Amino acid sequence: MSSELVPVMSADDIATFIEQHFPQLNEGGQCYFIEAIEPGAATMRLEPDKRHLRPGETLSGPTLFALADFAAYVVILAHIGPVALAVTTSLNINFLRKPSLGTLYCRCRIMKLGKRLCVVEANIYPASGGDSVAHATATYSIPPR
Amino acid sequence: MSSELVPVMSADDIATFIEQHFPQLNEGGQCYFIEAIEPGAATMRLEPDKRHLRPGETLSGPTLFALADFAAYVVILAHIGPVALAVTTSLNINFLRKPSLGTLYCRCRIMKLGKRLCVVEANIYPASGGDSVAHATATYSIPPR
Amino acid sequence: MSSELVPVMSADDIATFIEQHFPQLNEGGQCYFIEAIEPGAATMRLEPDKRHLRPGETLSGPTLFALADFAAYVVILAHIGPVALAVTTSLNINFLRKPSLGTLYCRCRIMKLGKRLCVVEANIYPASGGDSVAHATATYSIPPR
Amino acid sequence: MSSELVPVMSADDIATFIEQHFPQLNEGGQCYFIEAIEPGAATMRLEPDKRHLRPGETLSGPTLFALADFAAYVVILAHIGPVALAVTTSLNINFLRKPSLGTLYCRCRIMKLGKRLCVVEANIYPASGGDSVAHATATYSIPPR
Repeated sequence: MSSELVPVMSADDIATFIEQHFPQLNEGGQCYFIEAIEPGAATMRLEPDKRHLRPGETLSGPTLFALADFAAYVVILAHIGPVALAVTTSLNINFLRKPSLGTLYCRCRIMKLGKRLCVVEANIYPASGGDSVAHATATYSIPPR
Repeated sequence: MSSELVPVMSADDIATFIEQHFPQLNEGGQCYFIEAIEPGAATMRLEPDKRHLRPGETLSGPTLFALADFAAYVVILAHIGPVALAVTTSLNINFLRKPSLGTLYCRCRIMKLGKRLCVVEANIYPASGGDSVAHATATYSIPPR
Repeated sequence: MSSELVPVMSADDIATFIEQHFPQLNEGGQCYFIEAIEPGAATMRLEPDKRHLRPGETLSGPTLFALADFAAYVVILAHIGPVALAVTTSLNINFLRKPSLGTLYCRCRIMKLGKRLCVVEANIYPASGGDSVAHATATYSIPPR
Repeated sequence: MSSELVPVMSADDIATFIEQHFPQLNEGGQCYFIEAIEPGAATMRLEPDKRHLRPGETLSGPTLFALADFAAYVVILAHIGPVALAVTTSLNINFLRKPSLGTLYCRCRIMKLGKRLCVVEANIYPASGGDSVAHATATYSIPPR
């Protein structure tokens, strides 16, 4: 846990920013939604469709990676504001269980927000309940402010 | 390096297998190509298009992740054959440099092929020359044979 | 979170097992202590001394790695029992803040306990309070039972 | 690979620096030796003893972690010089095979040397020949110069 983190953007602010700067994210139909922004944390929702499937009617690895990476980007954006651009420098993901086709949540938590690096943890779990399907930790480089 | 690895499928065998089992991979136009299968290694080629871009005309993180993950799947398939289905259990990726829109190669090398786990290293670099843009290591679970 | 995990060994059982099988762990003076075993989790305590320091009066990276690895071993042992021997297959650690010389706790949580693999999360924080100093995720191979 | 890297310290320079700044490293008998410094790379040698063993006459995980971390520190030091102090921010290690008690080499290669971050790959293999026993990638934060 990282103490004393205060969001500087609301979920609506971020949604507007994303729409302007990442229009391709929801191309082919919106699938990513911001559920909540809290001190040090953010929750995203993915409504997957056929694009996200792999054989065996399970969601693909790149889908889970993209969800974790995007949620991490959002939680950082929420805490450093729209000026700076965070860039992923590394991401480690564990695939825990096969997710079936259905709504997923990704809860992302800032473990450290430094001047140059931000380290984030992401936990992905099905909206229908049950254990986590994936867990990731990621590091982002933050440009000089 | 893992000694004494011998591929049991050719690049053409694998391409046919992929086409049958992962038709969605190249949906919207083929972008992944198998360049070479060698003892303990495989090289893939990605011909990226607009789907793979993120702001700043650079290729997105999920694109590089998907390329590494797919190349790792291919090198394992080449060495254990089409019967077994390898599943990614974890993947660690370092983003080293921003790749511009252009052909990428991913060279994948088996570090260990055990009875239950296969550990693979993937190196992604631009066809136009220059330093690596990303490096990944990944572990796959191999079902009992 | 992994549901329905039940420990099969107590903290005392594990301490005795460790003493018998890993005598070198506390050579030069006991420094590792088991604080608590709970369903799906375990907490270890490290009382560091000069062996664990690096320049700048901070605890060394290998000290934090060893603590996370050992705590993960303990939580798995607690849940699969003394018969099986889990082996670390991979470990990813983020160093978040410089820990000063003082008691550390490591809380370890099982994210997945499968037939062949166990995935664990470890969080290291100072007994004196304050933010986490390191966070790790690790995968262990579990021999056939 | 990272092009155009030139070492600014020799193996002897580094050994002297280490002796002065990390005297505890070889406490209880010298076990780490610098074998070679090359453009973008370094090779370390570990002569393990009883301290490094775990049950089953194999070298412990923390021993391999410490070797990779130290070799990475050395290769960075060799290329940025003795002024700056690099700090490990994250390390991912795969344990590939059980190393028996005997001399190990660790070859470390810089994948990226940026202004703020250095990403390094480390490969550990027995002096007696044979496959790698561990592989790590690590990121180091470099202070402003």
